[in-house]
Amino acid sequence: MATQVSQITVLSPGLLGSSVARAVRARNMAKRIVVWAHRPERRKEISRQHWCDEVAETLADAVKGASLVVIAAPVDYIVSLAGEIAPHLRDGAIVTDVGSVKGHIARKAHGALGAKGYFVGSHPMAGSEKTSWTHGTADFFEGKTCFVTPLEATAPAAASAVGTFWKHLGMNVVVVDPDKHDEIVSFISHLPMALASTLSLVMARKDVAWRGYAGGGLRDMTRIAASDPRIWRPIFEQNRSAVLEAVKEFQNELKVLEVAIARGDWDKVTASLDRARTYRDGFKP
Amino acid sequence: MATQVSQITVLSPGLLGSSVARAVRARNMAKRIVVWAHRPERRKEISRQHWCDEVAETLADAVKGASLVVIAAPVDYIVSLAGEIAPHLRDGAIVTDVGSVKGHIARKAHGALGAKGYFVGSHPMAGSEKTSWTHGTADFFEGKTCFVTPLEATAPAAASAVGTFWKHLGMNVVVVDPDKHDEIVSFISHLPMALASTLSLVMARKDVAWRGYAGGGLRDMTRIAASDPRIWRPIFEQNRSAVLEAVKEFQNELKVLEVAIARGDWDKVTASLDRARTYRDGFKP
Repeated sequence: MATQVSQITVLSPGLLGSSVARAVRARNMAKRIVVWAHRPERRKEISRQHWCDEVAETLADAVKGASLVVIAAPVDYIVSLAGEIAPHLRDGAIVTDVGSVKGHIARKAHGALGAKGYFVGSHPMAGSEKTSWTHGTADFFEGKTCFVTPLEATAPAAASAVGTFWKHLGMNVVVVDPDKHDEIVSFISHLPMALASTLSLVMARKDVAWRGYAGGGLRDMTRIAASDPRIWRPIFEQNRSAVLEAVKEFQNELKVLEVAIARGDWDKVTASLDRARTYRDGFKP
Repeated sequence: MATQVSQITVLSPGLLGSSVARAVRARNMAKRIVVWAHRPERRKEISRQHWCDEVAETLADAVKGASLVVIAAPVDYIVSLAGEIAPHLRDGAIVTDVGSVKGHIARKAHGALGAKGYFVGSHPMAGSEKTSWTHGTADFFEGKTCFVTPLEATAPAAASAVGTFWKHLGMNVVVVDPDKHDEIVSFISHLPMALASTLSLVMARKDVAWRGYAGGGLRDMTRIAASDPRIWRPIFEQNRSAVLEAVKEFQNELKVLEVAIARGDWDKVTASLDRARTYRDGFKP
């Protein structure tokens, strides 16, 4: 992907997919950007966008000329879309996705493409609780991490091409086994979502005025709970065991803090807060 | 406090105390602003600030001319400072604080002042993990909530004067019983801190590279864990029972979500995420 390719296709562009198309356009990385969306009204809206040379009416039309296809659909549609496009792919076409879970998708999509193309799963760690394509930007991925998750069976050249693609969009590429990826994101992404939602549910039972009293802490701690449940349901579904393990570790850690507070062991409480602070201070500003 | 008073004194100015002094200066609410800090080097630093007309060497000197004294010290120093200044207060002087817990402080400080002045506890819901006086600003309190927590025995005129003071600093004043205050903040402030710290402790055991992979979710969810443990220790200490109750409610709610995920009850998971989202969407942007 280092030089300009003839065609990149983005399927189901939402926040991430439209950002991919905008970023590709801004960097002049493809002669043609073709987009497909499931709903006719969405196709109509997008056809007026500068980052889209053609809106295809069918998946077959969308992918037939593409050297790279980016499936930007929610996690539960990726495998079936891979299966549907397989017969129409150009020889040697590379297919990737932007889904938040990788083990299930990487194995199934690899199988679905068969000898028709190369599937290499991706997970750009960029997102927002605002998921519409209208919020996408050309610099959306810059400076962020992108997991690229080849299987052992994946052709190294295909994995390398997908990594290069994301690097050209400004991302720090981390190549990792799909199951290891799922473990990592269960802690750094899915657990925070579970906690933000749980805190919101606790607060939802309280006097509604309390929300207006809160400072930045509660606001920050619940922000991602505003995310779309239809996107998150299949993430929890496909990453169930890793999410449950992360939740369990959190519960155990919270129990330790609870017991220290209950016992009035303030030195232990302080030591815990100190270790937590040291961890948090390690984030770049 | 509607008109300019002759002297306002701020004791132990950190982030909040220096912001009080800056806001009072910017609004010309006092002819003189006097400050006292425990450490000589702190007194020397502050003496060069435009929001400080005099840095007193002793508490007695600091408060003797003040109609309003704001104790901006950490929660565990407030009661003893109230006792130390009591003999030196002007007749009818009003004393308030900015502590995050109110039940214990309101009762003890009221008793410590006796007939020498009026104590009315305050808790401005403004803060940051950066607690130095150097980060204070004149508009720090604008648009935020301030709890004012008179006891039944508190003179209504004193409570009213303290409420008016914070209103002049741009705050939305909520008058509430000190114990009710402690229940509210155990949920909207102390629970979020406990969760942010716990999540940080879980993450601190993982490969340090994971921190660099994280998106905005983990960053937001751990931000307040960077707060100073020396400030938080006495907050958890003085509000122990309310904090434990809030932690218990959170644990129960998380257990419900965990069980739904473990059972694969995705409709229930989705319904929970939906209710959480509705709550979060109620925050002003």
